[in-house]
Amino acid sequence: MAVNLSVPLASELKPVSGLELGYAKANIKKADRKDLLVMKLAPEATVAGVFTKNRFCAAPVQICKANLEKTGKDNKPIRALMVNTGNANAGTGESGYKDAVDTSAALAKLLGCEAEQVLPFSTGVILEPLPADKIIAGLPAAIADLKEDNWLNAAEAIMTTDTIPKAASRVIIIDGKTVTITGMCKGSGMIKPNMATMLGFIATDADIPQDVLEVMLKSAVNKSFNCITVDGDTSTNDSLILMATGKVDIGITSTASGNYQTMLHAVTDLAQELSQKIIRDGEGASKFITITVEEGKSEDECRQIAYSVAHSPLVKTAFFASDPNLGRILAAIGYAGIDDLDVEKLNLYLDDVWVAKNGGRNPDYLEEDGQRVMKKNEILVRITLARGNATSTVWTCDLSHDYVSINADYRS
Amino acid sequence: MAVNLSVPLASELKPVSGLELGYAKANIKKADRKDLLVMKLAPEATVAGVFTKNRFCAAPVQICKANLEKTGKDNKPIRALMVNTGNANAGTGESGYKDAVDTSAALAKLLGCEAEQVLPFSTGVILEPLPADKIIAGLPAAIADLKEDNWLNAAEAIMTTDTIPKAASRVIIIDGKTVTITGMCKGSGMIKPNMATMLGFIATDADIPQDVLEVMLKSAVNKSFNCITVDGDTSTNDSLILMATGKVDIGITSTASGNYQTMLHAVTDLAQELSQKIIRDGEGASKFITITVEEGKSEDECRQIAYSVAHSPLVKTAFFASDPNLGRILAAIGYAGIDDLDVEKLNLYLDDVWVAKNGGRNPDYLEEDGQRVMKKNEILVRITLARGNATSTVWTCDLSHDYVSINADYRS
Repeated sequence: MAVNLSVPLASELKPVSGLELGYAKANIKKADRKDLLVMKLAPEATVAGVFTKNRFCAAPVQICKANLEKTGKDNKPIRALMVNTGNANAGTGESGYKDAVDTSAALAKLLGCEAEQVLPFSTGVILEPLPADKIIAGLPAAIADLKEDNWLNAAEAIMTTDTIPKAASRVIIIDGKTVTITGMCKGSGMIKPNMATMLGFIATDADIPQDVLEVMLKSAVNKSFNCITVDGDTSTNDSLILMATGKVDIGITSTASGNYQTMLHAVTDLAQELSQKIIRDGEGASKFITITVEEGKSEDECRQIAYSVAHSPLVKTAFFASDPNLGRILAAIGYAGIDDLDVEKLNLYLDDVWVAKNGGRNPDYLEEDGQRVMKKNEILVRITLARGNATSTVWTCDLSHDYVSINADYRS
Repeated sequence: MAVNLSVPLASELKPVSGLELGYAKANIKKADRKDLLVMKLAPEATVAGVFTKNRFCAAPVQICKANLEKTGKDNKPIRALMVNTGNANAGTGESGYKDAVDTSAALAKLLGCEAEQVLPFSTGVILEPLPADKIIAGLPAAIADLKEDNWLNAAEAIMTTDTIPKAASRVIIIDGKTVTITGMCKGSGMIKPNMATMLGFIATDADIPQDVLEVMLKSAVNKSFNCITVDGDTSTNDSLILMATGKVDIGITSTASGNYQTMLHAVTDLAQELSQKIIRDGEGASKFITITVEEGKSEDECRQIAYSVAHSPLVKTAFFASDPNLGRILAAIGYAGIDDLDVEKLNLYLDDVWVAKNGGRNPDYLEEDGQRVMKKNEILVRITLARGNATSTVWTCDLSHDYVSINADYRS
């Protein structure tokens, strides 16, 4: 029951020259399911990544970080990415690390590069051994399927509890040249990214140096994937990758280059759309909720309050019920941990309805106005603090019976 | 569907000499419901309280804090406590404050004391005006009902979404004298106390000076009400009160007095039982879960990890499903915010089953062993960090369909 989200048309997803995608059905956890994806990059491509801050980061995340570090130093460009669903290869210790290395090496051998030039990604159940043999056996079929015009199949191949494949494109003209940016992501539960979300891949055919790409990715992620939450559970496998295949030269050599801001804007815009798709397809989601905290002393405190509201099970169940039990929002603001917050200056708005004024119920607030907004499936919660000029926005969804069902049944 | 929790027998709840309790049905939110409680104290009684740290603390909480501060300074002993359910009088601004003062003054007048000698408590919906007139109209009936042997009715009168009244007693012999301690509490949702829980009242007939009582309460609460969570939502109205009516002199004049530790132990023991009753009756709870984190550098970091596990919706739904999807526990440990945590030294046990060893799946762990424990309705999760000697324990419950139903329907 995703919120205002539909399967993209294959024709809407623009191929990115220099990146081919191919999938296989490798029977990793379930039969007859697209569960293995290979992406092959042009030799001149640059790649940047951000990863989970969970201390239990998965074996593939550790390898991705190491290989991306090497790629800058040793001039060994990343040539391929490999994604399996059905198993997260997290909490698997030394044998899990070896499995990730072995599968990377198998793909490298088939593509004629080195294992360090492969980035592996896994998503699925934690604490279970990775079936490396099934992945290795599935690689030839994925390679045989490689083509640039294959994003929709790819987006399907990385889904787990997602109900809808998530991908989108932007085509922009810079200095008369056509630049394409296409991205996809997966994730609907265990979503409270801390640096990136479960799995996201964005590619452009623009030529962007490695160091510039890294800055661009961090900047984009802080306005997109780092602003969403389904359940507050930060995954062990969160990874977001930005690839630039170098086919279109738009003269970006540093963040000071004239076209940097244009590209950053387009990448951020696409990253926001992708990250919001994760919330729209959040486990059990029936509402898409935007929480904006304004007039804070710092962005951090605004975000802290926004997340406190976004994570409150009581707030989330009230949204599910379309019940304007809005005192729950005040309670969540109050326990957000801002010790010097002066609640008597605080205002709360629900879309156009002024609910709380100076910390108490707005005398003009009518229950039926709150009820009217709560019945919508896209809602803006706006909180003003009267402490400063900082602002932060977080996107989240409600907490429904389906969330409990999905997570009580996930492995069965 | 409370977990191993039943209605106490009235005869189990021992009267505390010097404290009378009386209830009324004041029609505050629903008809024919015990919803107003008055407690009358002997003039020589001392009272200590701890209250929510939520910045949106309710009007009655503000008044309680102020009156308790005065009682020490101005030698104006607290003479009565008043509790209403059905309305939290929180987020109600100036008019809410006036309502709390007016109802306190009405009770003071009826009992022949001053308004500052009354402590008011409210629990229920936030952001709705307190029906002060109904409370004032109900007071004479509550006063007419005042008696020492009335704890079970009192425990019923403070219930909201609780399914079972929560109260217990301890009788101890100190220096040949019989000392009684009886307490009650309410709460099952919006439970993640920060200083105290929703509402709790503990009384003893021992003679304990005000300043000593305050230290005793803080010490007891840190081992009981500050170690529980249902949903991570810290209420606007959390209050825990410890009263000593002064009828039995056991020679306590300071925390160094010989019998202080004996009394502290008994009060803490009772506070633990009461706080655990809240978890056993947690909204929708079907399991009672103890999370102990051992071998930490500090109690704070142990508690931080325990709460991270206790609040994870994914961990809680796995417990609800009796599904040993225990990687979710590792993920929650990993994102608890302990940046230098070495996960390769970490162990995880479920009751007697060693699940994760040195950060990965224990090679000897069998799914059926995890399954066996997960099917129980009382489960111990034990985590060892190999970083130091500190330990902390948190009690929580699972996240079930009933939690969603209860909170989606609470106001209707």
